[in-house]
Parts: sequence; structure tokens; C-alpha cells
Amino acid sequence: MKLGRMNHLGYAVPSIEAAISHYRDVMGATDIEEPFDLPEQGVKVCFVNTPTDSGMNGTQIELIEPFDATSPINNFLEKNPQGGQHHVCFEVPDIATAREEFEAMGKRILGPTRIGAHGTPIFFVHPKDMQGMLTEIMETPKGDH
Amino acid sequence: MKLGRMNHLGYAVPSIEAAISHYRDVMGATDIEEPFDLPEQGVKVCFVNTPTDSGMNGTQIELIEPFDATSPINNFLEKNPQGGQHHVCFEVPDIATAREEFEAMGKRILGPTRIGAHGTPIFFVHPKDMQGMLTEIMETPKGDH
Repeated sequence: MKLGRMNHLGYAVPSIEAAISHYRDVMGATDIEEPFDLPEQGVKVCFVNTPTDSGMNGTQIELIEPFDATSPINNFLEKNPQGGQHHVCFEVPDIATAREEFEAMGKRILGPTRIGAHGTPIFFVHPKDMQGMLTEIMETPKGDH
Repeated sequence: MKLGRMNHLGYAVPSIEAAISHYRDVMGATDIEEPFDLPEQGVKVCFVNTPTDSGMNGTQIELIEPFDATSPINNFLEKNPQGGQHHVCFEVPDIATAREEFEAMGKRILGPTRIGAHGTPIFFVHPKDMQGMLTEIMETPKGDH
């Protein structure tokens, strides 16, 4: 595959509300989106936009909080009760091609391709096949260029 | 403080050589810098550059491998033997001002301000005061705009 833009850093937190306060009041973020639920992924989500030199969209921080007791990030938060870096997401132009490429390399893909927090198809690759990093591959949103 | 550019994602790995192969051969990175030693920080470093929509510099992946047995990342790698996300780094225009602001907020800063991997002053803020995320604050390199 060809490495695309680093879309976001996924950051699991026990409370999105507290994390928003942190990014706003401590880190000085001025562009924080509205939180929303993504129940099919088991998370609540909030994007913090970061600035760039060019004014283009920078790598986002994706705050994720468990949606309920079955959330896939509950285990992570048990091990990291304060929160912590959970995954990193890179864009690709075509999700089906990327999936075929990872499968051909024998990388374990976690579940089916599904719609992610940006409304485009995504899949996750197992951290044990990715040098310890849970990696999300995401199709670039159309009209984002 | 005012949130600046997300400069890099710090990623501790047991072997920079293996991680470079991963980013080149699996992830398709085409712009990987030469690794170098940063003995005063106890790490070997290699920057993987990621593309952006605009062609400007994207958030980098900073691969860090222990320089020796006293490296501050040895403990992290004992807990995460495959490697893992270690810290995140944001830019500020002036490091002294940022340090004063974090100190005024009562955030624990880890050691003195020192020269980081980009040749500009940096400091780290304790993850327990930063919602679980080890945070590096880095002065933007001059001439980088």
C-alpha cells in the first residue's frame, strides 16, 4: 500500500467531557467538534482539530469514550485508567484495494470493513502484525481535497 | 497556551531497523529520514514523513529505540515489547512562554528544557497531569514556515 495522510490519533479517555476541557483549557485547542455517539463501534467520539502551517486540515485527535459496558475500548481503559493513545489512522484512496493488499501480506484484519467516524469505510489491522500499533485504515472522504 | 501543529507521534520500538522495514514495505512510506543517535536523550531516532493534502509537512512518526541500558524508554518497552505509542508532540512558537504557562497551571514538567530531535528546545509534561498522555512541547523550528 501507499502511505496516505495521518488522519487522526485515536485517544481513549474515561470522559470525553474532561478531555475536551483539557484540550481547550490546558492545550489551547480552539477548534473542537461536537461529540457524537457511534454505537455500532461501541464508542462516543469527539474530534479535536489541530492547526497546520498551511491552514489545511491537520492530524486530528479522536477522543473516544466507551459507549456502554460492551465497548471494545473498556479493556484498554482498565489497563490505562487515565486514558492513553489507542490507535493511529492513515488514509488511503480506496479501501477495498488497501484491504486486499493487507490480506495478501498476511496481516490480520479485525472484522469487516465498516463505516467509521468520518462516514467513510475503515478497517483495523491487528497491532501484533503492525509492530505493536493498532492501525486504522480509512478511505479519504470525498471532496476533502 | 495555544495549541500548535501536531509535530510528531513518538513511537517506541525495539528495533528501528525493523520498524523502518515495516513503514517502507507494509505501510508504503516513501520519505524516511536517516536514523541518528540522540545519546543525551538515551534514544536512537528516525523520522518517517507522512504526506498531506497540501504537500506541506505532515505529522511525522518518530521511531525511538533505546540507545543503551539506561534509556528512559526501556521500561516502556518492557511493558510493550513489540513497541507502541509513547508520546505526542505539539509545537509552540516560544518554549519559555509555554513552560511558564504549564508551570502556572501546576503541570509537572519532566526535567529541564533541552534540545530535542529537531534541534529546537523541548520539554515533556507528565502523563498523569495530561489525561494519560505523555506530551512533548517543542519550539517550532525557525524557517519551517
